[in-house]
Amino acid sequence: MRKDGNLRINQFLFDYLTYEVVSLLAERISSESVKVKTGIEELQLINSIRITLRFRVDKMDYVNGPGRNHLFVPGPVNIPDQVIRAMSRNNEDYRSPAIPALTKVLLEDVKKIFKTTSGTPFLIPTTGTGAWESALTNTLSPGDRIVSFLIGQFSLLWIDQQQRLKFNVDVVESDWGQGANLDVLASKIAEDTAHTIKAICIVHNETATGVTNNLATVRKILDHYQHPALFLVDGVSSICALDFRMDEWGVDVALTGSQKALSLPTGMGIVCASPKALEATKTAKSVRVFFDWNDYLKFYKLGTYWPYTPSIQLLYGLRAALDLLFEEGLDNVIARHGRLAKATRYNIFLTLLLFIQACSYESCDLFLLAVEAWGLKNCTQKEEWFSDTVTAVIVPSYIDSSEIVRRAWKRYNLSLGLGLNKVAGKVFRIGHLGNLNELQLLGCLAGVEMVLKDVGYPVKLGSGVAAASAFLQNSTPLIPSRI
Amino acid sequence: MRKDGNLRINQFLFDYLTYEVVSLLAERISSESVKVKTGIEELQLINSIRITLRFRVDKMDYVNGPGRNHLFVPGPVNIPDQVIRAMSRNNEDYRSPAIPALTKVLLEDVKKIFKTTSGTPFLIPTTGTGAWESALTNTLSPGDRIVSFLIGQFSLLWIDQQQRLKFNVDVVESDWGQGANLDVLASKIAEDTAHTIKAICIVHNETATGVTNNLATVRKILDHYQHPALFLVDGVSSICALDFRMDEWGVDVALTGSQKALSLPTGMGIVCASPKALEATKTAKSVRVFFDWNDYLKFYKLGTYWPYTPSIQLLYGLRAALDLLFEEGLDNVIARHGRLAKATRYNIFLTLLLFIQACSYESCDLFLLAVEAWGLKNCTQKEEWFSDTVTAVIVPSYIDSSEIVRRAWKRYNLSLGLGLNKVAGKVFRIGHLGNLNELQLLGCLAGVEMVLKDVGYPVKLGSGVAAASAFLQNSTPLIPSRI
Amino acid sequence: MRKDGNLRINQFLFDYLTYEVVSLLAERISSESVKVKTGIEELQLINSIRITLRFRVDKMDYVNGPGRNHLFVPGPVNIPDQVIRAMSRNNEDYRSPAIPALTKVLLEDVKKIFKTTSGTPFLIPTTGTGAWESALTNTLSPGDRIVSFLIGQFSLLWIDQQQRLKFNVDVVESDWGQGANLDVLASKIAEDTAHTIKAICIVHNETATGVTNNLATVRKILDHYQHPALFLVDGVSSICALDFRMDEWGVDVALTGSQKALSLPTGMGIVCASPKALEATKTAKSVRVFFDWNDYLKFYKLGTYWPYTPSIQLLYGLRAALDLLFEEGLDNVIARHGRLAKATRYNIFLTLLLFIQACSYESCDLFLLAVEAWGLKNCTQKEEWFSDTVTAVIVPSYIDSSEIVRRAWKRYNLSLGLGLNKVAGKVFRIGHLGNLNELQLLGCLAGVEMVLKDVGYPVKLGSGVAAASAFLQNSTPLIPSRI
Amino acid sequence: MRKDGNLRINQFLFDYLTYEVVSLLAERISSESVKVKTGIEELQLINSIRITLRFRVDKMDYVNGPGRNHLFVPGPVNIPDQVIRAMSRNNEDYRSPAIPALTKVLLEDVKKIFKTTSGTPFLIPTTGTGAWESALTNTLSPGDRIVSFLIGQFSLLWIDQQQRLKFNVDVVESDWGQGANLDVLASKIAEDTAHTIKAICIVHNETATGVTNNLATVRKILDHYQHPALFLVDGVSSICALDFRMDEWGVDVALTGSQKALSLPTGMGIVCASPKALEATKTAKSVRVFFDWNDYLKFYKLGTYWPYTPSIQLLYGLRAALDLLFEEGLDNVIARHGRLAKATRYNIFLTLLLFIQACSYESCDLFLLAVEAWGLKNCTQKEEWFSDTVTAVIVPSYIDSSEIVRRAWKRYNLSLGLGLNKVAGKVFRIGHLGNLNELQLLGCLAGVEMVLKDVGYPVKLGSGVAAASAFLQNSTPLIPSRI
Repeated sequence: MRKDGNLRINQFLFDYLTYEVVSLLAERISSESVKVKTGIEELQLINSIRITLRFRVDKMDYVNGPGRNHLFVPGPVNIPDQVIRAMSRNNEDYRSPAIPALTKVLLEDVKKIFKTTSGTPFLIPTTGTGAWESALTNTLSPGDRIVSFLIGQFSLLWIDQQQRLKFNVDVVESDWGQGANLDVLASKIAEDTAHTIKAICIVHNETATGVTNNLATVRKILDHYQHPALFLVDGVSSICALDFRMDEWGVDVALTGSQKALSLPTGMGIVCASPKALEATKTAKSVRVFFDWNDYLKFYKLGTYWPYTPSIQLLYGLRAALDLLFEEGLDNVIARHGRLAKATRYNIFLTLLLFIQACSYESCDLFLLAVEAWGLKNCTQKEEWFSDTVTAVIVPSYIDSSEIVRRAWKRYNLSLGLGLNKVAGKVFRIGHLGNLNELQLLGCLAGVEMVLKDVGYPVKLGSGVAAASAFLQNSTPLIPSRI
Repeated sequence: MRKDGNLRINQFLFDYLTYEVVSLLAERISSESVKVKTGIEELQLINSIRITLRFRVDKMDYVNGPGRNHLFVPGPVNIPDQVIRAMSRNNEDYRSPAIPALTKVLLEDVKKIFKTTSGTPFLIPTTGTGAWESALTNTLSPGDRIVSFLIGQFSLLWIDQQQRLKFNVDVVESDWGQGANLDVLASKIAEDTAHTIKAICIVHNETATGVTNNLATVRKILDHYQHPALFLVDGVSSICALDFRMDEWGVDVALTGSQKALSLPTGMGIVCASPKALEATKTAKSVRVFFDWNDYLKFYKLGTYWPYTPSIQLLYGLRAALDLLFEEGLDNVIARHGRLAKATRYNIFLTLLLFIQACSYESCDLFLLAVEAWGLKNCTQKEEWFSDTVTAVIVPSYIDSSEIVRRAWKRYNLSLGLGLNKVAGKVFRIGHLGNLNELQLLGCLAGVEMVLKDVGYPVKLGSGVAAASAFLQNSTPLIPSRI
Repeated sequence: MRKDGNLRINQFLFDYLTYEVVSLLAERISSESVKVKTGIEELQLINSIRITLRFRVDKMDYVNGPGRNHLFVPGPVNIPDQVIRAMSRNNEDYRSPAIPALTKVLLEDVKKIFKTTSGTPFLIPTTGTGAWESALTNTLSPGDRIVSFLIGQFSLLWIDQQQRLKFNVDVVESDWGQGANLDVLASKIAEDTAHTIKAICIVHNETATGVTNNLATVRKILDHYQHPALFLVDGVSSICALDFRMDEWGVDVALTGSQKALSLPTGMGIVCASPKALEATKTAKSVRVFFDWNDYLKFYKLGTYWPYTPSIQLLYGLRAALDLLFEEGLDNVIARHGRLAKATRYNIFLTLLLFIQACSYESCDLFLLAVEAWGLKNCTQKEEWFSDTVTAVIVPSYIDSSEIVRRAWKRYNLSLGLGLNKVAGKVFRIGHLGNLNELQLLGCLAGVEMVLKDVGYPVKLGSGVAAASAFLQNSTPLIPSRI
Repeated sequence: MRKDGNLRINQFLFDYLTYEVVSLLAERISSESVKVKTGIEELQLINSIRITLRFRVDKMDYVNGPGRNHLFVPGPVNIPDQVIRAMSRNNEDYRSPAIPALTKVLLEDVKKIFKTTSGTPFLIPTTGTGAWESALTNTLSPGDRIVSFLIGQFSLLWIDQQQRLKFNVDVVESDWGQGANLDVLASKIAEDTAHTIKAICIVHNETATGVTNNLATVRKILDHYQHPALFLVDGVSSICALDFRMDEWGVDVALTGSQKALSLPTGMGIVCASPKALEATKTAKSVRVFFDWNDYLKFYKLGTYWPYTPSIQLLYGLRAALDLLFEEGLDNVIARHGRLAKATRYNIFLTLLLFIQACSYESCDLFLLAVEAWGLKNCTQKEEWFSDTVTAVIVPSYIDSSEIVRRAWKRYNLSLGLGLNKVAGKVFRIGHLGNLNELQLLGCLAGVEMVLKDVGYPVKLGSGVAAASAFLQNSTPLIPSRI
């Protein structure tokens, strides 16, 4: 780097401190006629600075607020400490007997979260977007007609992918906040006696709007018309949290991502294929290599399981995550998600009622404003679509929902989800999935109330928490391991 | 172990599974005439069981509930993730240049939490109890008269120690819930013109009752009478959380434990001695070896710092904890404790007022009971003694406070402090010290409300959270690093 | 699960223990007429077993040997403790300001490991195989003619991918153990005046055979003929360990994986594109979505950086890994790899010489066998191709190299690389890349000697370590931070 | 950043950078008339610096060399990764049911490492020095006559403690390098028909000189004369590594520290008392509070187990450490220590022999020097005393052994033990205890050879590793879990 006079400060120190600071230091040193000539002397000079610095700076972190971050985005979600511990380890040779033995059991166990016995799972080093691509390219050919439902940002992105992968996408659009229009599906299927429709692609739970689609009905429609279309399901924000039944509903490909209800870090796309889906790979002409299931199947047969290097840490993490899920019981986990979601909705949407009651005794400065302007609504338009993993809340038009998210993070160390695309600025989202319990949620709701007040919304503090508590105090079971 | 027939199962497996299960296994195997003869075969048998088990059982934990444990005992407290990370490391040679270099800076920095420049700190591998013993035995001789204040369980335990160490303890007792009676101190000091009193021992913050004593007044009394008694302070649940000024208040020995407001694991007693206290070691005849400061001082001079092996992990942890404290700013940390404490007290003790208001519109079945029986009170009897690190809450006589603590843990994964000794069953305690923020506290308060309702106390859910939120929404600053 | 008599054991326990064991337990219990009727009682029964088990089983691990695993496969490699610590953390909202701020600096810093200022890096949640696919599909169209060199298993796999992605691959094959035949390249380029060759694809370091190709020469050939072909380089087992100069050598796409010399877990494919490569994306017709660079570039412009969820942990890990690299100095890191590689080669290939000397004093039972059969050779056929990150060792024909790898793992907790494909059974590989030092390597070499003896190879124990030590004792510098 | 005049840099930044650097910065800025007035602006200024710095500095560490530290001091020793993981956790309420349940099992299991069924263990938050004090003060009264053996630095320190605790210590001294003189003990016991001797205090393994004493003989002497003296044993560097049998040898108090063969961090003194020792507490008049066993026993009876706060992390760590010990099998662990120790001794002390052989074929420049001056000897004078946990090596008089230790750390990242007190500068020590395996040891030995050569000792590189390998290649079993 800079060589002014006799001073050469090495690259590391230059990078380590800002240019500004080091150049000042350099000036001072040179003005004092320090003669630093040999490498050793130079190093000693630098080390004397480093020794002073080194023990001071170990832990700086942009997210340092006092206390914990309250993570309520709908993914990535909180990782249980047990899983963090399980993952805190060195790499291993993935060709030793240990990793195949671990993988074998994982593949068997992971089928349980899909509720399948006949499916074949793949643990792909990718994200949900990659899992989508894997589902499509392994089963379909360019030009294939597929029916896909546009109901929010994530279904939009999947459709975008479908189109860029050159499928002939028959888009069924709903208002954002509504579920997939299955009536339209029914008529399309009814009409398609020639079986030109090769696949139905549907997002089980649209994370952008908090809408859960009814998969059982999709299956009923297909069965009713004895239609052979493949049934491909994005379960990214549903599997392990919502009721999902791969075999019973005849799902052909289901997929999720590790960072959602499984409560792991991002990096593993978990895809499960029915026998019919595996059969479809034989004729699917979409170009694929990294995502090709057949490369996996070849190594499954060899018993070495991996066509390329897996993340050792995610495998151990998945083991720990499944242990926790099975210890709690998958159905108990799903019930817990239902309980927390209901508490969230009670909180937000019963607030109005409580507020009106409250006004009978409170100083009523805000009364008119509240009654006139309130309209705090669930983005999800009907109860049948209410999502148990994420609630999208519509804010009044005079408030920018992004400001709520920003302020929650800056003042209360609370991470909420932004409104996306069409609903940007209009909704914020509370993710209530993964490794969460009642008091974590109530802390979040108390925080949301404070932020709402911060941004000028006339919420009665505590009113929502009261409603949620009332529900939870009635419905929360004892922790089984502590009975 | 057991050798039934041909089967020998090794010690590990025997330990690993219960006796019950393995003996059943042994029976079955022997009944099937399995012939296991050689060590290798035996091992293979056992390994075949272990291979099945090993990846399933890695993460069992007695405290597994879904989500986080909400830790609100007044110690040990929540450890920041940054500190857990810093401590997650192998041992090191404590005689290499690295550990003395680290220690040197730590000793310098740790003085800041005592607000001293003239004090000498000791980082002793012990607990608060050991730190007490260190303070007493290094400065006093058996038979010495000391004045000590009994105001709760922890001052009681310290007095018990003082007596067992053979000091002549002049106990000044107050009701539990009151502070140290400094009027009595003043008269004792006034009378003691012969200077028979060698030391004043006082607990800054009595953790059992949530009482903070006024140390500045103690110093004023001593100064007023120009009394030379040593001034020994237990700052276990105060230092790093409450206003504490070693030099300004003329404290001679101050001490704390790593697991309190410093937010580390237990295992380091941090003791700081004034020059006068160091001088006193020369004449103090109490027998001491492990706790002898002079052994430390000898190694301080050598620059190797440690008379015996320190915990490498706690040293790095202390570095990280101090970094976080200094980044937030010690005065900001103290202000945060004040804010959270006030929110806790508002929550609990304004609830009555809110409840009465609420009754004007609520179905009033519980009204009479509430008004007659309520009496939810702070154990601390006057505002001047209110503690900013722990609040002890008196429950109605028809409720056993232990049941509250038990149920909080069993149902809501919430850890509260028990009532101790005289107030056992009568109070429960909320610790609000260390690495905490607003939403964590509000989650705790929501949980306390639910537990109160569980045990039959007619609390209006949300009422306390409402009061606390109202205060916090007004007083919480932006997180400085995120502005 | 099973309901024999009155016993219902829940799913978890069933999963937790083997079927075998629990069914025995069930029999016993039922035979003893245990009446377990209510859910609570059942739970208590199960919990009584779990309480006994739970604290015993936390840490079982298939790879538990005493002491550390010695990881000398050529990837995944040892992760420094500092990096493991940095990654041991909860998820975060990747849309908060923190993650973009972190990413921005990472993208800037990661360019240094490629030695580029004009390149654009992408941190893709994938493996090396995905990084390959990203390099190809973003810059080329189906049918494009590319020249590719087959010199070992990994270049073979890349070529397989190129063919499956429908490129017209002009394969230049060498014997396994030789480098890419650049004379053939030169003539192809010379002949291609029509510029039908769209890209040269070359593996910088073939991990299967320990062969390093000369990239500077490739550039010279292209420049000499002013040929516009893109220059795509697999740097998976070279970047951060071998001399690599993206800008100077005019490389258009370079890529590596996080689990190689960067010493991170698997899961991040790091790809860097020259301006010319970015330009090529505009005309490249290969279908791509997950791997599409333009999706990244769109988010780079927005300042949010991520088209889909990154691994928070890998980002912090990369930060820590780069800090360590820059602290040591990239050129020092490369020099260290050269030193350790040379020591490995000295060890293995000077052993013959030492053995002959040794035979002059040793009991010479093995002499004839040794002299006749030895032939322990480097798979790499010429010094110009010697790899500084992996050494592939040819074993005598009467030994199966897989047995060496198996035995190293089973007896000495040493992980070596298998021979792959054409050289399966014939070579084993020592990976000496990533976060390693001299004594770790010498421990490995001592282990290899013992394994060689185990499998009947007449090695003189210590002879190789002696040669390696002699070299290292001369060439190892002081650790800069400790001078 | 910088701009204009009246600069106030806050405390954090001031602490964060060195005084030196910041004062330079301040000067420069003020000279440029930076005007920074409001708190917000100041904060933004500072944050702009921090944003640049924060992601760069997370992982600096004084001990950063490339690769691992090779830790071969005789304590603190390497912690297994499984234990580091188990300890990487938040605090918990130690009064919840979880910690007593964990403690109960630990107390039962820890008895196995003492080979006692009748003993009562105490897990005291202290170091070995504190464990000594606990053993003495709970069983003896000031003025009691005790026989104690001075054979090295640690027995010296214990005797110093005994004297400072006011016992009447009858010191039996041996040359450093010899074991305890049990003949003298026998005659003292024979003469003491009045039973004035109240206790025999002996260090099982003197860590300073690598000497193991014969405890069975001590018991035989006491039994022969039917002498009732208590038998107190420091097992700090022996228990879990050497053959130790509390019940069989009639040991009354045995103790160790967590950071030795148990392979945990420092911080837990593990003391086990026989029924006779517990009986002795009733009459022992030594003043004790923190170390008083009766405080523990009171809480054992209550089932809450802890008189004061334990380290939650060390409890979980102990659980994991015991699991690993029992999985390997305590006797296998002891055998492994024997194997590694023998390999170390073979290495060092057979080197001469090998060297002479080697000289028959090597260039013999160093021959005369080697043969004349060599004298590399074990500090332990007879085989009967050889320690299997530490080897103290005597260096030639022209070498300062401290230079060996310094250089090993500075050049090879190898941590060796210094010579202490009488043998300072004369010996260095290799600790080979705790979680170690064969290749780790061989790496260390290769390093020692290089350091010896560095400091001018004419060692033949590889000669010692050769001898150790020869022994280990014959004696190392397969890893049981991998058969």
